[in-house]
Amino acid sequence: MIRKRLSSEEYAAGILKGDRMILSKSITLIESNLDSDRNLAGELISHILPHTGQAYRIGITGIPGVGKSTFIDSFGSYLLDQGHKVAVLAVDPSSSISKGSILGDKTRMQRISHHPQAYVRPSPTGGSLGGVTRKTRESLLLCEAAGFDIMLIETVGVGQSEIAVHGMVDAFMLLLLPHAGDELQGIKKGIMEMADLLAINKADGAMQQKAQAAKAVYSQALRLFPKTASGWKPPVLTCSALEQKGIGELYESLLAFQQKQQAAGHWQEKRAAQQQQWMQERITDLLHQAFYENEQVKVRFPALAEQVGKGEIGPMQAAETLVQKWIEKK
Amino acid sequence: MIRKRLSSEEYAAGILKGDRMILSKSITLIESNLDSDRNLAGELISHILPHTGQAYRIGITGIPGVGKSTFIDSFGSYLLDQGHKVAVLAVDPSSSISKGSILGDKTRMQRISHHPQAYVRPSPTGGSLGGVTRKTRESLLLCEAAGFDIMLIETVGVGQSEIAVHGMVDAFMLLLLPHAGDELQGIKKGIMEMADLLAINKADGAMQQKAQAAKAVYSQALRLFPKTASGWKPPVLTCSALEQKGIGELYESLLAFQQKQQAAGHWQEKRAAQQQQWMQERITDLLHQAFYENEQVKVRFPALAEQVGKGEIGPMQAAETLVQKWIEKK
Repeated sequence: MIRKRLSSEEYAAGILKGDRMILSKSITLIESNLDSDRNLAGELISHILPHTGQAYRIGITGIPGVGKSTFIDSFGSYLLDQGHKVAVLAVDPSSSISKGSILGDKTRMQRISHHPQAYVRPSPTGGSLGGVTRKTRESLLLCEAAGFDIMLIETVGVGQSEIAVHGMVDAFMLLLLPHAGDELQGIKKGIMEMADLLAINKADGAMQQKAQAAKAVYSQALRLFPKTASGWKPPVLTCSALEQKGIGELYESLLAFQQKQQAAGHWQEKRAAQQQQWMQERITDLLHQAFYENEQVKVRFPALAEQVGKGEIGPMQAAETLVQKWIEKK
Repeated sequence: MIRKRLSSEEYAAGILKGDRMILSKSITLIESNLDSDRNLAGELISHILPHTGQAYRIGITGIPGVGKSTFIDSFGSYLLDQGHKVAVLAVDPSSSISKGSILGDKTRMQRISHHPQAYVRPSPTGGSLGGVTRKTRESLLLCEAAGFDIMLIETVGVGQSEIAVHGMVDAFMLLLLPHAGDELQGIKKGIMEMADLLAINKADGAMQQKAQAAKAVYSQALRLFPKTASGWKPPVLTCSALEQKGIGELYESLLAFQQKQQAAGHWQEKRAAQQQQWMQERITDLLHQAFYENEQVKVRFPALAEQVGKGEIGPMQAAETLVQKWIEKK
């Protein structure tokens, strides 16, 4: 069987028609590290870019064990019932280790993973956080162009992935457990401060009372934080993904956030800043590419790196020599 | 009063004599973002580089509330009693917010902060994690050149700072609390996997029994991790910084780690890799510097960034145009 290679126009046309097979293939293209694929992917993104930006991009984070997959399954099927088209992506820079759990994710999202209006894509594997971030951001655009109007972006990895996801979403939701005391210590202050909405999950059965107590503790803790620039006060809600309770209220709160942010112009400001951030990251990528693929650098770098490793030359001096030579020769 | 500006040779001579005043001034120089200071700092690092590398560099992390400052005070004074010279640095990329806690750190390290053989330096304020990392790494070299033979590097910020500290130390220690259950969820798996030694702090009074139970839980958890390349099995110890208990055992374990790593060659390999990492980070800095300080880029960047923010041009396309033009003109 011959694997027919589509042109970027053919990919774009398929995506805009909502063809799921082509969407999947195009995300695979985005995730490829081959030079030829990268060029094709760049063209594809240019084609579909005018058809993106309409979705509500929602980031979801929380410590392992908080029930992120079950929550996304529950929240996603609520949104599907409301007539939305829902796509789920994940940022997981440590995915080489936790590959198993990603396959697990799809099986744990049983309600949405086979729904015709939903699309669940495992995290791109391997590579640095920067690479994973770029791939996820581009996949998000492809899903938007394919007509998905709610994007759920899950963080799976260590600390930095929350920051990466925060940099690509409109609203950032922190899932919490009903026993607040010790957990409050475990959640890094920086993560709490990034959240637009806190949801105490597993507020069911015997845990309902505990969840109410936790809600009081977190509401109290949030009061200690400086006011946000937009004036939005992150609400603390309780829900049960298992019993499908509190999910509607949670979505209403997200809609209230959207309305308030849009009215004040913060929505567009944030997206503009995110686009500019992306431009700067791309500049860094391109500078690296031009530098490390230069023939002189290719020849000299390994020897210099070895000398640096042996302590024969300082790392800064080595870097300066190499960069200086490259700039002069350009 | 005229502020006399020292030459890089004068700074270096003062540091090598162990002059604390000049050490402090030189770290302030390192932390400066002024171009002229950056050049002087670069020269200074070149001068002192041959006199660095002898110290045992120990990273210390743990969630807020685990008692890092008290532990460092206790561990530091034990090391001082053993005749060591101890310097304490911190990596805190969020320090613009938590400035108060840094001043607090010094007062909480009462035993060591006024000791003639100890040096406690608050984290450099402001700037990106990259900037803070560079400044801390260079400060570490200055302290080593000044004769400090044990460096304690504390992580204070959000997730990423652990990764930054791990990239500049010989041994990485994770402090834990005696109630293991919930905490085990709160600690990101990636952090546990980076630790060379786990220490359950606050193992005193009524908590002693709990600490023993926690030790069993963590030892069990560690068994699930893949074996490290060096074959070292991170031990789980208990200690009380408050009652100065278990601190000697902890240091002996760090020494055992050092001996084993040095014998197998892993010690030097890790340091070589860290130096090479540093070289690559410096290359990125220099590429950015050359690019963003180019006159054409300075003129064109703001307008392009504005267009990207408004969605008139894609972020990738804008980046490519700008970088392409810069490379051609060079």
